[in-house]
Amino acid sequence: MARTVSAPAEESLNGLVTVLDFVRTHGSSTRPRLMHATGLTRAVVTQRVAELVEYGLLAEGELGPSTGGRAPRLLRFRADAGHLLVADLGATSVDVALADLAGSIVAHVEEPYDIAAGPDVVLDHVNELFQQCLGEAGPLSGQLWGIGIGLPGPVEFGSGRPIAPPIMPGWDRHPVRERFADYDVPVWVDNDVNVMALGELRAGIARGHENVVFVKIGTGIGSGIVVSGRLHRGAQGCAGDVGHIQVLDDHGEGDVVCRCGNVNCLEAFAGGAALGRDAENLARRGRSQFLAAALDEKGSLDASDVARAAAHGDAASVELITNAGRRVGRMLAGVVNFFNPSLIVIGGGVAGAGDLLLATIRESVYRRSLPLATRDLVVKRSTLEGLGGVIGAATMVTDELFAPQRLAQWLDAGTPVGRGELAGHR
Amino acid sequence: MARTVSAPAEESLNGLVTVLDFVRTHGSSTRPRLMHATGLTRAVVTQRVAELVEYGLLAEGELGPSTGGRAPRLLRFRADAGHLLVADLGATSVDVALADLAGSIVAHVEEPYDIAAGPDVVLDHVNELFQQCLGEAGPLSGQLWGIGIGLPGPVEFGSGRPIAPPIMPGWDRHPVRERFADYDVPVWVDNDVNVMALGELRAGIARGHENVVFVKIGTGIGSGIVVSGRLHRGAQGCAGDVGHIQVLDDHGEGDVVCRCGNVNCLEAFAGGAALGRDAENLARRGRSQFLAAALDEKGSLDASDVARAAAHGDAASVELITNAGRRVGRMLAGVVNFFNPSLIVIGGGVAGAGDLLLATIRESVYRRSLPLATRDLVVKRSTLEGLGGVIGAATMVTDELFAPQRLAQWLDAGTPVGRGELAGHR
Repeated sequence: MARTVSAPAEESLNGLVTVLDFVRTHGSSTRPRLMHATGLTRAVVTQRVAELVEYGLLAEGELGPSTGGRAPRLLRFRADAGHLLVADLGATSVDVALADLAGSIVAHVEEPYDIAAGPDVVLDHVNELFQQCLGEAGPLSGQLWGIGIGLPGPVEFGSGRPIAPPIMPGWDRHPVRERFADYDVPVWVDNDVNVMALGELRAGIARGHENVVFVKIGTGIGSGIVVSGRLHRGAQGCAGDVGHIQVLDDHGEGDVVCRCGNVNCLEAFAGGAALGRDAENLARRGRSQFLAAALDEKGSLDASDVARAAAHGDAASVELITNAGRRVGRMLAGVVNFFNPSLIVIGGGVAGAGDLLLATIRESVYRRSLPLATRDLVVKRSTLEGLGGVIGAATMVTDELFAPQRLAQWLDAGTPVGRGELAGHR
Repeated sequence: MARTVSAPAEESLNGLVTVLDFVRTHGSSTRPRLMHATGLTRAVVTQRVAELVEYGLLAEGELGPSTGGRAPRLLRFRADAGHLLVADLGATSVDVALADLAGSIVAHVEEPYDIAAGPDVVLDHVNELFQQCLGEAGPLSGQLWGIGIGLPGPVEFGSGRPIAPPIMPGWDRHPVRERFADYDVPVWVDNDVNVMALGELRAGIARGHENVVFVKIGTGIGSGIVVSGRLHRGAQGCAGDVGHIQVLDDHGEGDVVCRCGNVNCLEAFAGGAALGRDAENLARRGRSQFLAAALDEKGSLDASDVARAAAHGDAASVELITNAGRRVGRMLAGVVNFFNPSLIVIGGGVAGAGDLLLATIRESVYRRSLPLATRDLVVKRSTLEGLGGVIGAATMVTDELFAPQRLAQWLDAGTPVGRGELAGHR
């Protein structure tokens, strides 16, 4: 049956997305490789490549490897065709960066601050740091295309507003996007753990995995879920809130009240705040000379003090960390049975504290999960620490910028959506 | 920029899938409605419709509603263009059906049997029931296009083989597909809970939901997970195994060993087998006259006896059911925090036993989950009981038959993949 017809704009869109996504995620390609990988014909690949070169998103490069005949020309994604401003806001520090369209970091600033200072103070400061990054980067080839923000609390992704965030007083339903309206580019806001999961997927050890759980163990505990290679946000956008799953010990215990108001949440036992609290108790009760000395010196203790003490062989601290790891492992054993991921990535400040925690988590997961679900399961520590948030925020922005629906808007408008003039904001 | 080029087969495939999927899932449509809903132009819709009529998958019907001008002609999905044979195998009963390409049941047989009789006996019997269904249905207009089987244990979806299924002795890695090779059509096999979840999604209360957890509480406990409108099978295909998540009580207790070898699994407390075991113990220890009388009469007790006793006000049975519901609710509270579904469907034999279980589950989920995650969460009982498995098995087959990759094979071959002659199997 003949099926050669003239293709309308709506239908050619898919070929365009396919070609752009392949070159974008692989960095470069050739026309024959594109034909092979996408199943599109030579005529369509040629046409789509020509359009993307015209849009300034692809560039012809040097000759690529020959497979017998004339060597094909390399096509390169023009990551410098545009830029992104991104910020990863934690509880006590902020990372701000300028990234290109491939999500690579061009300039980066990290600073201690306090999220509890409220949205006016904090977002004004983020704006100043954006300007500082632009200043450091010097003259740029492309325009600003988008802004991405990660916040340490629940965010309604559709509106970009934090919803009743426990450690962010004054931020409830704050219109974060509007604070960046002057840039005249789209702004996406999500919670920091989702953003970090995207960072792992794009640039960390989750690359190439389809079903991933990223767990952040910092002051609190949260997770970001990747299903079939895409972030799963859930019906209300609050998927991944594993810190408030109840995880009991084998033989019962007194109730511990969590900051959420419920009792015996994972976070109330195994989060960084809980570890600091328990360490101070041990120090005061004379159960650890090491922790007592640290408390005398600093006046308070946190998870890094416990990790340091455990590394020096302090028995009470080793027990604190193994107890925390066991609880995290119990929660994850349930997640593994339910979700059957191929990879669990452990990140956040407490995770960076040492191998003991990771080993305990692993042991607990393998012991309590279905054998088939753990057959090829990998549990690893994040290798992106520090930059994971800003890389993930940049990935969030590029994923949204290059989504099919948005590309359809470009095709209609004849120009990319992002129009912000970098120069106008220096 | 002009983008009018001649479209090759690979690219026109998407339009074909879009048109077919829209008419198939809506039952009927018109060309103007298709243009509006899919964004395809009049020329492409006309061309794709002509192709699908030629394939025998769409038919022109009577005139549809006019929106001003000439009334457009109705296009109808020809559900009778082909047929499917499906079977839902439980622990103690089997449902076999003949379905059309819309997943509607044309003939249905249900019988008690024993899955533990092994694959030879059971699958030969399924084959006989297939023939019985064909006999009941009488002459059919279309050929056989595919076969779908649900099994009560873990299944490797890619190979269609059960993997170490606990209640299916002799079935480990059995090549189920090969038993149906004579039909010369593709065969898909999955576990019964995934299949029932698909049934809820296509024909039950999960219609239109994007993120759903279907929980089957029968002899054992399992779940099927729908993410973004599609079944999530996980990395090893064993996602949803919630029956073996550890769920402890608030104040500690003796360990209960589960049939999986681990201790304190949800199923060991709240599954149908556990309820029967606990009911028999209560009867023997004189804690319930009602249960003791039933045990005298029947020699053994199951979940339906407990439900009946509870409905008659037997205090010990009410406590058994509320304890079971509380454990299921605790497990689901964790699932809600992690996954943030919009709907939880409770099905299976034990779920059908009464409202007390559902009410306790609901109360427990709402109390233990994040408020944002339960804001619009619905927890409901399945309304498909009985037919859910075979409708789901038919949905599994049509989802696979009409998947884009398979449609590509049709386009290459010029004919649908299913070629089995129904007449040859009578």
